[in-house]
Amino acid sequence: MLQAAEVGNTLSKAEFREVVPRLRLDLVNAQYDLKGADFPVVVIIAGDDRVAANEVVNRLNEWLDTRFIRTHVMGGRSEAELARPQFWRLWQSIPPKGSMAIWAGGLLRQVVAHLAGEVSDLDFESWASHLEGLQDALVADGALVVKFFLHTPESEQRVRLKRAQKDPALGWRVDQRDWAALDTMPEARPVVERLLRRLSAAGAPWTVVEATDARYRDVTIARTLLSALTARLAQQPAAGVALSPELFAPGADQLTVLSHCDLSARLEKADYRKRLNRLQARLHALSLEARERGISTVLAFEGWDAAGKGGVIRRITQSLEAGDYRVIPTAAPTEEERRYHYLWRFWRDLPPAGTFAIFDRTWYGRVLVERIEGFASDAEWQRAYDEINDFEEQLAERGYLVQKFWLHISPDEQLARFQAREDTPYKQHKITEEDYRNRERWSEYEQAVDQMVLRTSSDGAPWFVIAANDKLSARIEVLEKVTTGLKQALRRL
Amino acid sequence: MLQAAEVGNTLSKAEFREVVPRLRLDLVNAQYDLKGADFPVVVIIAGDDRVAANEVVNRLNEWLDTRFIRTHVMGGRSEAELARPQFWRLWQSIPPKGSMAIWAGGLLRQVVAHLAGEVSDLDFESWASHLEGLQDALVADGALVVKFFLHTPESEQRVRLKRAQKDPALGWRVDQRDWAALDTMPEARPVVERLLRRLSAAGAPWTVVEATDARYRDVTIARTLLSALTARLAQQPAAGVALSPELFAPGADQLTVLSHCDLSARLEKADYRKRLNRLQARLHALSLEARERGISTVLAFEGWDAAGKGGVIRRITQSLEAGDYRVIPTAAPTEEERRYHYLWRFWRDLPPAGTFAIFDRTWYGRVLVERIEGFASDAEWQRAYDEINDFEEQLAERGYLVQKFWLHISPDEQLARFQAREDTPYKQHKITEEDYRNRERWSEYEQAVDQMVLRTSSDGAPWFVIAANDKLSARIEVLEKVTTGLKQALRRL
Repeated sequence: MLQAAEVGNTLSKAEFREVVPRLRLDLVNAQYDLKGADFPVVVIIAGDDRVAANEVVNRLNEWLDTRFIRTHVMGGRSEAELARPQFWRLWQSIPPKGSMAIWAGGLLRQVVAHLAGEVSDLDFESWASHLEGLQDALVADGALVVKFFLHTPESEQRVRLKRAQKDPALGWRVDQRDWAALDTMPEARPVVERLLRRLSAAGAPWTVVEATDARYRDVTIARTLLSALTARLAQQPAAGVALSPELFAPGADQLTVLSHCDLSARLEKADYRKRLNRLQARLHALSLEARERGISTVLAFEGWDAAGKGGVIRRITQSLEAGDYRVIPTAAPTEEERRYHYLWRFWRDLPPAGTFAIFDRTWYGRVLVERIEGFASDAEWQRAYDEINDFEEQLAERGYLVQKFWLHISPDEQLARFQAREDTPYKQHKITEEDYRNRERWSEYEQAVDQMVLRTSSDGAPWFVIAANDKLSARIEVLEKVTTGLKQALRRL
Repeated sequence: MLQAAEVGNTLSKAEFREVVPRLRLDLVNAQYDLKGADFPVVVIIAGDDRVAANEVVNRLNEWLDTRFIRTHVMGGRSEAELARPQFWRLWQSIPPKGSMAIWAGGLLRQVVAHLAGEVSDLDFESWASHLEGLQDALVADGALVVKFFLHTPESEQRVRLKRAQKDPALGWRVDQRDWAALDTMPEARPVVERLLRRLSAAGAPWTVVEATDARYRDVTIARTLLSALTARLAQQPAAGVALSPELFAPGADQLTVLSHCDLSARLEKADYRKRLNRLQARLHALSLEARERGISTVLAFEGWDAAGKGGVIRRITQSLEAGDYRVIPTAAPTEEERRYHYLWRFWRDLPPAGTFAIFDRTWYGRVLVERIEGFASDAEWQRAYDEINDFEEQLAERGYLVQKFWLHISPDEQLARFQAREDTPYKQHKITEEDYRNRERWSEYEQAVDQMVLRTSSDGAPWFVIAANDKLSARIEVLEKVTTGLKQALRRL
């Protein structure tokens, strides 16, 4: 696949001079058109020729309007990046709709680290699979992903390096690293080729570019990018493939996860106080140990309106040091957030090492309110289960404790709480007409919750359905799950 | 000052129950009003009682609507924070207009570190002075800054700690750190009091809150915050104090910095090539050493339209590894950026350790285009010189290499370049009607550049006026300044 690309393409200086001005003009114009479009562009530069990749990145920044492009070179990971799942960095680097990002490097390094035994088979497999997952999520969301693999034959690279050694004044662009990289190539090539095939997808094919001749290389990349961008701009947004939504809405008489939940639990106030204090003390101690050892926790809270999420969350945060947690209330996405994939803002809010991120409503909005209210298309919410599983799997693999809670109450209890809220001045703002309207769709939501829990429960990120008609017992039950989970997580690692 | 606050304030349970519901309602309503206002709110929680500060932060998060508030606890600094000036973290934590942030902790710790000899006199002084500078910048920009210092008498804290030790099941909120903190108090108190006085300002006074009684403490803080917020919401935005702009516009016949610049320099192409290659090789080597040693560089480029900033910047980036620099083109602020202080986005873009941030147009827009076109009020651009000096001083203190370039060309040369651009297809988008209009204000800009260079040149962040009628000699001159500067920076540290 790579050697097949070694056909000796070149472009003369004269040809280069002739085509470049027009190419630059067209590129910049396409960028201006992109500004008004509702998709982002990710240009991926990988390859076996470090110097060439460097030059291509500089060239693209020269030819394109840099105001609408951002370059991310994947070097060593920072402390903040090491504390999060591996793909946090890429999620942080996704461009908003209407703009462009260049992601350069990282692919070959991962292969080399794998071959050197620094990355286990399992980790390499999981890396490739999550990379595929990220690519799928981007493409499904409408992003244009243009991928280049720069290939320069080994023999050519050796000639260049030797020439550079002889004339250090001219050879400052290459160094020792490049010799070392060459030595690993014979072993790395088959692995790289398998990877390229695996990451090829209908919406995001690889373009292998022969990089021996810099003029040919740069013009080829610019032309490919231009034609992909032009084609995508002319295209109607891809609708995505959706199953019939009826498949997801079986009869209302079907038993659901929620119908199994026994809502009769009650806890006496005195008993509650005693257990609360004990659990909070335990959680406090565990949280200090978690901070010390860098174990992060993600708690996801969903539930019916007025189910008592706020009260539960406060009982947790009371036991934590103020600097060790962040409560992230999830409202409808802001205008800025809407310019990204829906999971982007949750990736952004992943906690630093050793701390808690407590989400008050979560990414599950995609398969709950967005599904029911039609804010997400059928194709969008149907593929969300896989995307969410992939997301949570990465958290668990990074060693995060992930727990998800659905606070369950009965319709009657909800009505009683709505009415009580209307009688409490400082809670009135929490209750609107819409809350009453949502009640009419109770059974639709119940189906959606059922499918959500069934399709996204995993060992690494379990769902807990909490009986919450009694607020006190709900709080204690959640605190028990969190302390038990954290204790196990600390014991495990 | 602190002991004077020890008057034994308390609030009974009954009173607390009576006032809190209304207080919460009013607070939440004030937050909703704030959403539509054009200023941010910063609530600062400092104090000598760690446990109380923790509880207050939790309480505010309970009483306020957490969707519009964000809490930042100033604990140890992360790797990314350590690589930037000390106040980078606070600049990152500034809330956008219409929302609120809580900044908790850090003040007493700085005092204690100072007393322990971990922070030198000079560093402590510079910290206090920059903190003052930040506060002034926020207040001048319209922010409401509400500052609390929680004080609990030593004797009371000792009683509490002893009680907690006897009953560990109840005492999980306190620990060894609190004993240690108490021991340093006698020495720390006078320093803290001096600091509080120093940081008191007309727009941002301290409220010292007796923190012995939790109910009194929380209600007092909530009431103070509410009344400050209500008053500020009712107020017309402060106009700021401006000098007569005429003072800044002396006669057009006055000699300026630019009039001293000799534009006759010329460089032959062959000579240029030789020197360019040598300088780029040197810069490349220096950049590797800078990365190795964590020395960051900030290059700021300003100049007349068509003065050749892009070409100069490219000659620099060609010598750098793609992962070691970012070019930041500064356009008019986006809608999101407009919700912050104008310096915010430049703080945000400060480079990570060992890398380059190259600004194509900069924060000096405030005293150039914003001044001339009236986008900034007289008070705003007049205070900007001090704000910018304070900003750059912090960069220099952190060990950044900071260099600022004004690329100077003659009006005739500019006109010739405009016309050439119109004849080059891929450069046409760079030229608009506005560019021609700007030419009419040449002498106004010349005055503004003159004042800018005179008022913001410093050893740590010098201005270089570069004769750029000849592009080749301009590029070489800039590269020489950068390599020389970087070499000195590497030798110095």
